[in-house]
Amino acid sequence: MSKTNPGNFFEDFQVGQVIEHATPRTVTEGDRAAYGSLYPTRFAVPSSAAFAASVGLDAHPMEELIGFHIAFGKTVPDVSLNAVANLGYAECRFHQPVVPGDTLSTKSEVIGLKQNSNGKSGVVYVRSTATNQRGEVAIDWARWVMVHKRDQAAAAPETVIPELAKAVDAKNLIVPKGLDFSSYDFTAAGEPHRLGDYEVGEKIDHVDGVTLTESEHQQATRLWQNTAKVHFNVEARPDGRNLVYGGHIISLARALSFNGLANAQLIAAINAGAHTSPAFAGDTVYAWSEVLDRVETDAPGVGALRLRLVATKGRDESMTLRGEDGKYAPGVLLDLDYWALIPA
Amino acid sequence: MSKTNPGNFFEDFQVGQVIEHATPRTVTEGDRAAYGSLYPTRFAVPSSAAFAASVGLDAHPMEELIGFHIAFGKTVPDVSLNAVANLGYAECRFHQPVVPGDTLSTKSEVIGLKQNSNGKSGVVYVRSTATNQRGEVAIDWARWVMVHKRDQAAAAPETVIPELAKAVDAKNLIVPKGLDFSSYDFTAAGEPHRLGDYEVGEKIDHVDGVTLTESEHQQATRLWQNTAKVHFNVEARPDGRNLVYGGHIISLARALSFNGLANAQLIAAINAGAHTSPAFAGDTVYAWSEVLDRVETDAPGVGALRLRLVATKGRDESMTLRGEDGKYAPGVLLDLDYWALIPA
Amino acid sequence: MSKTNPGNFFEDFQVGQVIEHATPRTVTEGDRAAYGSLYPTRFAVPSSAAFAASVGLDAHPMEELIGFHIAFGKTVPDVSLNAVANLGYAECRFHQPVVPGDTLSTKSEVIGLKQNSNGKSGVVYVRSTATNQRGEVAIDWARWVMVHKRDQAAAAPETVIPELAKAVDAKNLIVPKGLDFSSYDFTAAGEPHRLGDYEVGEKIDHVDGVTLTESEHQQATRLWQNTAKVHFNVEARPDGRNLVYGGHIISLARALSFNGLANAQLIAAINAGAHTSPAFAGDTVYAWSEVLDRVETDAPGVGALRLRLVATKGRDESMTLRGEDGKYAPGVLLDLDYWALIPA
Repeated sequence: MSKTNPGNFFEDFQVGQVIEHATPRTVTEGDRAAYGSLYPTRFAVPSSAAFAASVGLDAHPMEELIGFHIAFGKTVPDVSLNAVANLGYAECRFHQPVVPGDTLSTKSEVIGLKQNSNGKSGVVYVRSTATNQRGEVAIDWARWVMVHKRDQAAAAPETVIPELAKAVDAKNLIVPKGLDFSSYDFTAAGEPHRLGDYEVGEKIDHVDGVTLTESEHQQATRLWQNTAKVHFNVEARPDGRNLVYGGHIISLARALSFNGLANAQLIAAINAGAHTSPAFAGDTVYAWSEVLDRVETDAPGVGALRLRLVATKGRDESMTLRGEDGKYAPGVLLDLDYWALIPA
Repeated sequence: MSKTNPGNFFEDFQVGQVIEHATPRTVTEGDRAAYGSLYPTRFAVPSSAAFAASVGLDAHPMEELIGFHIAFGKTVPDVSLNAVANLGYAECRFHQPVVPGDTLSTKSEVIGLKQNSNGKSGVVYVRSTATNQRGEVAIDWARWVMVHKRDQAAAAPETVIPELAKAVDAKNLIVPKGLDFSSYDFTAAGEPHRLGDYEVGEKIDHVDGVTLTESEHQQATRLWQNTAKVHFNVEARPDGRNLVYGGHIISLARALSFNGLANAQLIAAINAGAHTSPAFAGDTVYAWSEVLDRVETDAPGVGALRLRLVATKGRDESMTLRGEDGKYAPGVLLDLDYWALIPA
Repeated sequence: MSKTNPGNFFEDFQVGQVIEHATPRTVTEGDRAAYGSLYPTRFAVPSSAAFAASVGLDAHPMEELIGFHIAFGKTVPDVSLNAVANLGYAECRFHQPVVPGDTLSTKSEVIGLKQNSNGKSGVVYVRSTATNQRGEVAIDWARWVMVHKRDQAAAAPETVIPELAKAVDAKNLIVPKGLDFSSYDFTAAGEPHRLGDYEVGEKIDHVDGVTLTESEHQQATRLWQNTAKVHFNVEARPDGRNLVYGGHIISLARALSFNGLANAQLIAAINAGAHTSPAFAGDTVYAWSEVLDRVETDAPGVGALRLRLVATKGRDESMTLRGEDGKYAPGVLLDLDYWALIPA
C-alpha cells in the first residue's frame, strides 16, 4: 500500500467529520522578514515593535495574513489537494495576534456537502480552527471548495448546506487585548486619515503596482507549507505555467493598500473572498478598496472599517468591480471583504 | 602580491595538513524561515518548537541540512574552489542538533591524496569537523574531490587512500540527548508509518515535483556562504548557465520525501552521496526512496532507517537507479544514502 | 481628496523644513538571514555572534548597510518618489551598531534647494537622521536628489547649497563602543591582511562576479520598504524593464569585496557615492577597490581604511574608473567612497 498521501476525494468527506491537520508550525521573526521580502508591506504595527508597544501590544504581532496563510496551508493536503476550485471563505476571525514563538496547529470540521449534478465532483464545506501552543484559538474560518470524486459511481451524500453569515457582525469583532489607539502616532504610521475620514461607498485607488515574478509566489507557497502542486510544478498544468498562489495575491493587495489605508493596521475578520481570475508571473498587480461599513468598538480609540479589497491585473482607475452583465470585470483577480481596525 | 584567495590547487595539499576555515557563522530563526521559503519541508520536529519539546528536545533543532550546508560551505574556498568535481561523501554524523544561536566553525584535515594519471589533477580526501561556540563537535564528515593542479609539472605526492566506511555502522549512530519517541503524535506529524511499517527493499515514490527556478538555488548558495562560482556567475561556465548547487538538490529531495517518510524526522548520518547529473533552472525535480536497512536504538521509541534518497529530473515511477549497463539511469540527479531517526 | 501619497515635488520643499518619515521598522535576525540570501557576504563580525563577542561587541551587529538601506528607504516616499535622479551622498556616519531588536525611525531636514535652469526640476538637499527606539542616533547622512516640479510655472526658491565635506574627517569616525581588535582572529576572519598591509593607491580586484536575477533586487527593495516604482513595476518605465535598486549594487559590491578586504569588518562612514550607470537582471557584477587613505584610531588595535569601492558590469581587470575624457568608464555602475574599520 502506498505510503504517500493521495489527498481526500469528495466521497471521503462526511458531515461532522473532524480532521486534525499536520504539521504544527512555529512562527518566528524569520517569517516576518521573509514576508517583508515578498510583499511591500509597511503597516506600522507589524513593522515596528516600538509602535506596537505604543498602542498597547506588548508582544509584537505578525501580519494577520502570515497566521492565516500558515493555518490555511495546513488544510490543503487533507481538504483541497484534489480540488477543482477554491470557492469561498466566510466567518474568518482573528481571535488574538499571532506573535513570534507561537506554534499553530489546524483542525477542520466538515460542515456541509453537496454533490454536483454532473456526478464528477462536489462541494465540501469545512470550518477550520487554528490553535496556538496553549490550545487557545488564534484564527477560525469557514471555507468551501469543489473537490473531485475518486469514483463517479459512488453514491451522493445527503446535501447539507451550512448557514454562513454574509459578513462577520461588527459586534462579534475581536479587538486584541490591550489595543488602545488613543495616543496613536499618525505621523509615524504614515497617513493622517482616521475612521471618520472614510465614507461608506468611498473608493480608494491604491496607485502602486507590482509585477509578479516566478520566484516570490513560490517562496510564499513553501513558506506557508502549502502543497498545491499547480503553484510550483510546471508539469502539473496542461499549459506548463505556474499558477500564482491565491494567498500571494491577497497579501500583495493588502500591502499595496497601505497607500491610502495606512492606518487600517490590523485585520480583525475576513467576511468573504473570491479569487476571480488566475494570475501568472509577468502580470502587474494593482489594488483598489471600497469602504463598505464603518463602526466604533468598545476599545479606546479603536474603530473598524469594513472594506472590499480588489486586486487587478493592470491598473483600473475606474475601479470597476463588475461589468453590466454582473460578471467580474476583466482584470479583476481578487475580491476580498474584510474588517480592519483603525483609529477612531 | 594579490590579496584575494585563489583557492588551493592539488599540489597545495599534504596528508596531515589541517585547514581552519573562515568564517564562523551563527545560525538563527531567520535561517529556518529562509530554508522554509526555499524547500517545501514539513517535518514536524524542525517545523514546530512545541512538537520538538514533546519528543524531549528543549531547544528547537534546525533541519540537519542547514548545519551541513553551512559547515560544508566553509570548506569550499580552501578545498574545492578549483575543483573539477565533487566525488563523494562518507562517514557524516550529526553529533548534536544545531539550534538557533549556535555558531558553527569548520576545520578540515587532509586524509588522502591521489594524483590522476593524466597529471592535470588529483583527488583530495578531507575529513571536516564543524564545532559550535562551545567547541563541541556538531557535525563531521569525509569528502573527496577532484582538484586541478596549478602546475602540471609539479611532482606527484605519495598516494594515500583513506579507508572510509561504506556506511556509518548502526551502532555508531548518535541519537540527540533527550530524544524520546514513546509519546510521538503521529497525527500531528502527518503520517501513521513507523519503523516496522518499512521493509528493507521497499521503494517509495514521493509523488510531488518542484520546478527549479533561477533564484532559489542561488539564494541557498549565498545563505550557506558557498563561493563556488558556477552557481551564480553565468560567465563562469562556457554554456552561460548557472549550475544548480548540489546541496540544493539534496535539500529539495529531502523535503519532497516528507510525502511517504514524514516520520523520518531527523537525519542521524549520511553514508554516501553522489551528484550524478547536473541540474538547471527549468528542470522539474522529483524524488524516490529505497529502504536499505532498519534498526532499533537504545533511545526510547527511537528507531533508525537507512534510506537511499534519489532525486530525478522528471518523475520516474519505475524508480530505476541504474540501467542494465550499471550506469545511473538518465534523469537521476542525486543518489544519497543516509540514516534517519523514526518512531520504532 | 485623494488619500494616497503623491510624493513631494520640488516646490513642496523649503529650507529648514523637517520631515518625520513613516514607518518605524524593527530589525531582527530574520533580516540578517534575508540579507545573507541576497548577498554573498562573509564578514566575520556580522556573520558570527561569537566572533563579534571576541572583539568586544556583546550584541551582534547587523551589517551596517541593513541599517542604512532601511533608514534610507523611509525617506523615499517623502523625498524621492518624484525624483529624476539620485545625485549623491555625503557625511554618512554610523553612530552605533544596529542590533536585532532595534527599531529605526528616520527624519530629514531640508538643507538646500536649487532649481534647475530648465525650470522643470530642481535639486533638493536633505540631512537625514535615523534614531533607534531609545531616541539615540544610529545613522545620519546627507543626500541630494533631482526632483520634478509639479507646476513648471511655480516660482523658483532662493538657491541654498549646503557645504558638505568631501569626506568624513578621520578624527570624526565613530568606533563602536567596546570594539577591540587586539586579539583579532585572522584565521577565522579569512585573511591575514591588516591595516599596514594596504598601501594608499593600491587597487584590489575582488575577482568574483554575480549575475543579477530579477527576484533578488526586488526582494531587497521590499525588505527595506523602498517604494521607488521603477524597481518592481515594469509599467513604470518606458522600456518595460525593472531598474535594479542602487542599494542592491552597493550591498553586492560590498559583499564581493570580502575577497581581498575580509578584515574591513565594519563600515564607519560613507563619504560619497554615485550610481553611475543603471543595472538590470542578467548583468554580471564585479567589484574592485582602491585604498584612498589609512589611519589609526584611539580604539585598541582598530585602524581605518578609506576605500573607493567600484562595481562594474563585467570584470575590468584594469580597474579603470574614468576614461581619458574624465567620464566614468563604460561598465562602471557604482563609485562609493567609505571608511572601514580594520585591525591595525
